[in-house]
Amino acid sequence: MQTQFFAHLRCRECGRLYPKEAIHVCEWDFGPLEAIYDYEAIRRHVSRKRIESRAPTMWRYREFLPLEGEPSVGTQVGFTPLVRSERLAKALGVREAYVKNDTVNYPTLSFKDRVVAISLSRAKEMGFTTVACASTGNLANSVAANAASAGLESYVLIPSDLEASKVLGSLVYGTRVVGIRGPYDKVNRLCSEIAGKYQWAFVNVNLRPYYAEGSKTMGFEIAEQLGWRLPAHTVIPMASGSLLTKIAKSYQEMIDTELVEKAPFAIYGAQATGCNPISDAFRKGTELVQPVPKPQTIAKSLAIGTPADGYYAIQTMRKSGGAAEDASDEELLEGIRLLAETTGIFAETAGGVTVACARKLIASGKIPKDGTVVLCITGHGLKTAEVLTGVLAPPRVIEPSLREFDRLVSSDLAHASIPAKMET
Amino acid sequence: MQTQFFAHLRCRECGRLYPKEAIHVCEWDFGPLEAIYDYEAIRRHVSRKRIESRAPTMWRYREFLPLEGEPSVGTQVGFTPLVRSERLAKALGVREAYVKNDTVNYPTLSFKDRVVAISLSRAKEMGFTTVACASTGNLANSVAANAASAGLESYVLIPSDLEASKVLGSLVYGTRVVGIRGPYDKVNRLCSEIAGKYQWAFVNVNLRPYYAEGSKTMGFEIAEQLGWRLPAHTVIPMASGSLLTKIAKSYQEMIDTELVEKAPFAIYGAQATGCNPISDAFRKGTELVQPVPKPQTIAKSLAIGTPADGYYAIQTMRKSGGAAEDASDEELLEGIRLLAETTGIFAETAGGVTVACARKLIASGKIPKDGTVVLCITGHGLKTAEVLTGVLAPPRVIEPSLREFDRLVSSDLAHASIPAKMET
Repeated sequence: MQTQFFAHLRCRECGRLYPKEAIHVCEWDFGPLEAIYDYEAIRRHVSRKRIESRAPTMWRYREFLPLEGEPSVGTQVGFTPLVRSERLAKALGVREAYVKNDTVNYPTLSFKDRVVAISLSRAKEMGFTTVACASTGNLANSVAANAASAGLESYVLIPSDLEASKVLGSLVYGTRVVGIRGPYDKVNRLCSEIAGKYQWAFVNVNLRPYYAEGSKTMGFEIAEQLGWRLPAHTVIPMASGSLLTKIAKSYQEMIDTELVEKAPFAIYGAQATGCNPISDAFRKGTELVQPVPKPQTIAKSLAIGTPADGYYAIQTMRKSGGAAEDASDEELLEGIRLLAETTGIFAETAGGVTVACARKLIASGKIPKDGTVVLCITGHGLKTAEVLTGVLAPPRVIEPSLREFDRLVSSDLAHASIPAKMET
Repeated sequence: MQTQFFAHLRCRECGRLYPKEAIHVCEWDFGPLEAIYDYEAIRRHVSRKRIESRAPTMWRYREFLPLEGEPSVGTQVGFTPLVRSERLAKALGVREAYVKNDTVNYPTLSFKDRVVAISLSRAKEMGFTTVACASTGNLANSVAANAASAGLESYVLIPSDLEASKVLGSLVYGTRVVGIRGPYDKVNRLCSEIAGKYQWAFVNVNLRPYYAEGSKTMGFEIAEQLGWRLPAHTVIPMASGSLLTKIAKSYQEMIDTELVEKAPFAIYGAQATGCNPISDAFRKGTELVQPVPKPQTIAKSLAIGTPADGYYAIQTMRKSGGAAEDASDEELLEGIRLLAETTGIFAETAGGVTVACARKLIASGKIPKDGTVVLCITGHGLKTAEVLTGVLAPPRVIEPSLREFDRLVSSDLAHASIPAKMET
C-alpha cells in the first residue's frame, strides 16, 4: 500500500536520489538524506474524511510516513490531546493558547515514541533484529520499550550522568543500557562509529531518514485537532532541531496535499540558555551554529551542543517569520510550575523551556498578544522529577485529628483567599 | 441532555431513592448510594455507531455517567489503548492476553483521572469551588491536576509516608498537600469528619456516588476496543474494591442496553498479600471482610485495610464465576518486569500485582489456559519508581571508545545470544 507514496531518499543539499536503504548521508557532499514522497499521489488518495475514519493514532497519517508495508511496532502511538487553556493564555498574556500534550504519549510519555514507532517498524521491514540509539533519555526509554514489545534486541547509549528516572525508565524493559562518560555529543560520535561496524538499526544514525519523519505526526495532529487549520504560531523545543523542521514540513505537506488551506505559520524554537547554539546563532543573524562544548543546563534532553539540524532549524524559523528564544534554568522551572498550575499538565524540563520561551516571545511582541499559539510539550515531568527537589515546598504533616486540620485551614485562610464555606 | 438518563441516587441495600445531591450514605441503613439511570431510555438512544462517531475520550459513554449537563473538567480523559500482546500471553501461559493501559491516561497517568473527571465536573455543576480527597497517591495527583486546570481550589490528604514521585506529582500543581501520620484508613476517617464540617466537594466522600461511576468507562472501552464484545476473563486490582464492581457494572449495562451480546464475563480481583482483606475473605468463602490494621506492602496504592466496597467486590467475583488472588512484594516486582519486558508497558506496583495475580490464576487453572484475559493496568511505573532501586542492575559505564564498546558487546555475546552480525 505504502510503496506508491514513499518514493526514495534524497540528499537535502544536492538533491541526489538514493534507494530506500539504511543510509543517512549523501556520498557526495555528506548532506543528510530525507524521505521523499509522491505528493500528487497522496493528494489524490487522502482526504480529511478518510483520515478521520481511522484509529486515533499517528498512523492515521500513514501516507506521509516512510514505510513500505503496514506498521508493526508502536501501532498505538500518538494522537495525544491538544488542550486549549484559557488559564494558560491569560498567564502568558496571549489571546489563545493550546498545549500539544505528548506527556501522555504511548508507551513512554514523550514525543520520541513517534520517531521510534516509525524507525522500528522500518527496521523490522528491513530485517534488523537488533536496534540501538544514542540518547539523552527519552529516546532510550522509547527504543527500550518498543523493542521489548516487538521482541527485538536493543542497546541504548546514554550520557552516564542522566536523570535517575530516565535511566530506570530504560532498564525496566530489559534493554542493554550503556552509560558513556562525557556529554551527549561524545555519545553520538561513538554511535556513528558503532553503526559503521555493527549491522544494527541505529534509529538516529543509519535509520535517521525514517526516524525523523515520525516527528511530522505531531504537526499533522495539531492541525487536525484545530479543525483542519494551521496554527499561526507554534513553539517547539530544540535539541538537534529536527522536531522543529519536521513540524514545519508537516504543515507544508498538508497545504500541498490540500488537507488544509494555505495560511502563514510562524515557527519558534526554544532552547535552554545553558546550551543554546541554535538560538544564539539565530539571534546573531547567522546560520553558522557554534558548538557548545560543555552544556550547562538541567534541561538535559535539550543539551546537544552540536545540533545536527541546527542550520535547517534556523532556516525554517527565518523563512516562516518565527524566531528563537532561550530560557535559564530558573525560568524553565517557573515554566514547569506555570504550566502545571494553569493546565494540570506536568512537563519535563524541556516543556518548562518551551513555556518559558513562549512567555518571553509573547512579552517581547515576537508572538502577537492577539494571536493563537500552540506549545509543543514533548515529555512528562516525572522523567525529570529530581529538578523539583527543593523547589516545591514539602507537604505539611499533621496527626489524623480534625483539630489539627482546622488549625491548618485557618492558617491558609489567613494567608490566602480560600473560598471555604464552613457550616459552623 | 443528560438529565433524561441519569435519574437519581439509590441505596444499594434498601433501595430507597435519594435526590442527586452531594450525599453518599443512606440515612436509614448507612448503605452506600449509587447513581441510577433510565436504561430503557439509554437503550433507545445509544448505538455503537453513535458512540464510535464521538471523540476518543471516556465521554463517548456519557449517557452512562451521572452528570446533568456537559462535562467541564477532564474533557480529554480516557480511551487509553487496549494492547494485545502475544509475548505476554506466552509468558503467562494463556492463549490471548490484552493490557488495558491506563498508564498513559490523561493527565496524570492513572485510572483515577476517570473518576476525577466525572466528580469534578459534577462538583462544578453543583457550585463547589473547593475540592478535596483522601488518597493513596494517584487520586491526589489527579484531583490536584484537574482542579488546577479548572481553576478550583484543592486540598489533598495523603498518608505521610507515600512514594516521593506521588507527593511531587501533586505538589507541582499548586494544590495544598497535607500528609497525615498513619495508614490510609486513618486519612480516610479524618476526611469523613472534615467533609461533615467543611462544605467542600470531597470526591471520594460526599461525591462518591458520582466519582465511582467514572470507573465504568474503563470497562466500556475494553468491550468496544475488543470489537464490541465482553472479555471472558478480566483481572482488576483491588484497593477499596470499587473499580472491580464498576467494571462488572459496565459490562452488565452494555448487555442491558444491547451494545454487546450477552456473554459470561468472569471478574478476578488482585491484591497485595501484605494487605489482602478482600482476597483473604474470598478464599475463606466468607463475605465478612476482616480489616488489616497495618498494611505491609510496597503496593501502597492498594494498601487499604478496610476496603469500602470489599463486600460488593466479593459478591461480584463470586456471581461472575471469577476469583481473588494476592501477590507478595517479590512477585509484584517480577510482575512489573514481566510486563515491561514483554509489552513495553511500565506499570506501578498495583500493575505488578495485577500481572502477578493473573499469572497465578492462570497457573492454578482458575483462568483457563485456552482463554482470553484482559489485565487492567491502572497507573504508571514512574510513580512508584523507587521500589525498583536495587532490583534492576545499574547501567554499565564506559569511556566514549569503540574498543571499550566492543569489549562490552563481546562479553554480552559470550553470556547470551545477541544476533549481532559484525562486518569484521
